[in-house]
Amino acid sequence: MDPQARIESALADALRVADHADCPPGLTEALSYAVFPGGARVRPRLTVSVAAACGATDPALVDSAAAALELLHCASLVHDDLPCFDDANMRRGKPSVHVAFDERLAVLCGDALIVTAFQSLASGAAKSPSALAALVGILARSVGAPIGIVAGQAWECESNVTLERYQRQKTGALFVAATQLGAASAGKDPAPWVLLGERIGEAYQVADDILDVTAKPEEIGKPVGRDAARLNPNSVLELGMGASEERLRNLVEAAVNAIPPCAGHAALHELIAAEARGLMDAALMCHAAA
Amino acid sequence: MDPQARIESALADALRVADHADCPPGLTEALSYAVFPGGARVRPRLTVSVAAACGATDPALVDSAAAALELLHCASLVHDDLPCFDDANMRRGKPSVHVAFDERLAVLCGDALIVTAFQSLASGAAKSPSALAALVGILARSVGAPIGIVAGQAWECESNVTLERYQRQKTGALFVAATQLGAASAGKDPAPWVLLGERIGEAYQVADDILDVTAKPEEIGKPVGRDAARLNPNSVLELGMGASEERLRNLVEAAVNAIPPCAGHAALHELIAAEARGLMDAALMCHAAA
Repeated sequence: MDPQARIESALADALRVADHADCPPGLTEALSYAVFPGGARVRPRLTVSVAAACGATDPALVDSAAAALELLHCASLVHDDLPCFDDANMRRGKPSVHVAFDERLAVLCGDALIVTAFQSLASGAAKSPSALAALVGILARSVGAPIGIVAGQAWECESNVTLERYQRQKTGALFVAATQLGAASAGKDPAPWVLLGERIGEAYQVADDILDVTAKPEEIGKPVGRDAARLNPNSVLELGMGASEERLRNLVEAAVNAIPPCAGHAALHELIAAEARGLMDAALMCHAAA
Repeated sequence: MDPQARIESALADALRVADHADCPPGLTEALSYAVFPGGARVRPRLTVSVAAACGATDPALVDSAAAALELLHCASLVHDDLPCFDDANMRRGKPSVHVAFDERLAVLCGDALIVTAFQSLASGAAKSPSALAALVGILARSVGAPIGIVAGQAWECESNVTLERYQRQKTGALFVAATQLGAASAGKDPAPWVLLGERIGEAYQVADDILDVTAKPEEIGKPVGRDAARLNPNSVLELGMGASEERLRNLVEAAVNAIPPCAGHAALHELIAAEARGLMDAALMCHAAA
């Protein structure tokens, strides 16, 4: 099965638990709505690719780690879109969860997705129980306080915030988890994989900042111009377009150079370079057309 | 150390991760505010008592399971109090998190508490790695979809709901987790402990329903009369006061009779009977005074 199909299947498995007569039908529906159809599944694909490069031998463990990461990403999108945060009415080209259902179900759907992520990870570790604590630790660090995406989002409530710290936590944390989960689910030390995750995360954030300024809503399936409207930190607004484009190019180059030695180094290099080119093209094309 | 002190110490340990220069100060403060000072810590005390009765030998595992359960309970209180749900401005005798901070920090604080619960559990399993998957599974089932507290809360968004199912999920689930975590953290089969948790949970819910109708806000540290105002299911509103009081008495008796055979049966029986008497006295006293 190709990585994308493996991820969709692992996500469907993780959500199957909620498809139960005892579950409030609105919650079952909201959970599925928040996860399918997905975006590019960039983070879990990175986990699967790194795990393959590290010679992983327990596919159930890899897939459940990748699915858990994507479930947490989906949870963060549902909560970030809420009226009290971004108040975004569109996500992945359709109404956001709080618009399609209601605000209460959006809060609960995000909560349930966080829980399901850890539950799915525990189920997937049946054959590798000794790996579970480290994987839970990596996942929790990338989401919670003090330096996960929840912390990143909480910087929006502070008056004194640096762009770098905000972006490292709000976007970078899940990419660092993606590479670390890949290594750890293959039984390898996750520490050397942090730098690669950080650089991909930074590149992704800069590309997203450029798109927020230059893209049309229909091109990216969500509202644009949100950062300026909400005074959120944004590379383009802070550094200008030219410097942001240069930063993106440098980060992409730095990312491919940060892949640690591993059995599947060449294939992983090829994959990440192709992803990075796609990311860069999308951002710069929208700018050229803007 | 007595059980209460062990629990407070485990909770402080779990939150220490957020007390970090990289964490947004508002989030660090909100997390601590949501957890300390606590309520009666009924659920984690039950976990510690059951673990002791089952002859637990890894106190770090027991304490982290108990703390994780309480963190999830605190998370549910923070989210339940939000304006889109109960819109409750007081909790444990002080302003609720969204009133003391703001709505955004209340959403994020709840999210971070859920994550911290699983993180704390994984840290506490260092000496018992093979127990972790089962404990994560018990905890996740009691919180998520289809039958955990998130599902219980989501029944408030449905038009067709039975009192029994709503209460079993919204309140019962964490009590079932409390007894199961106690047994599982002592290396015992958690299945025989479900019934005890269910009965304590039902008794607790009926007592809470009585208090919502008869107590004064200053007696219980939170608003009263919320169920009638919000058309939430409530035993007293559904069955009447007399039948609810009788149901509470029967449930308390059924609970003490549901303790499975275990090494510390006599001591656990004594403890649960004392707790149950306290619960019943509080509910019936407020009714007598009302």
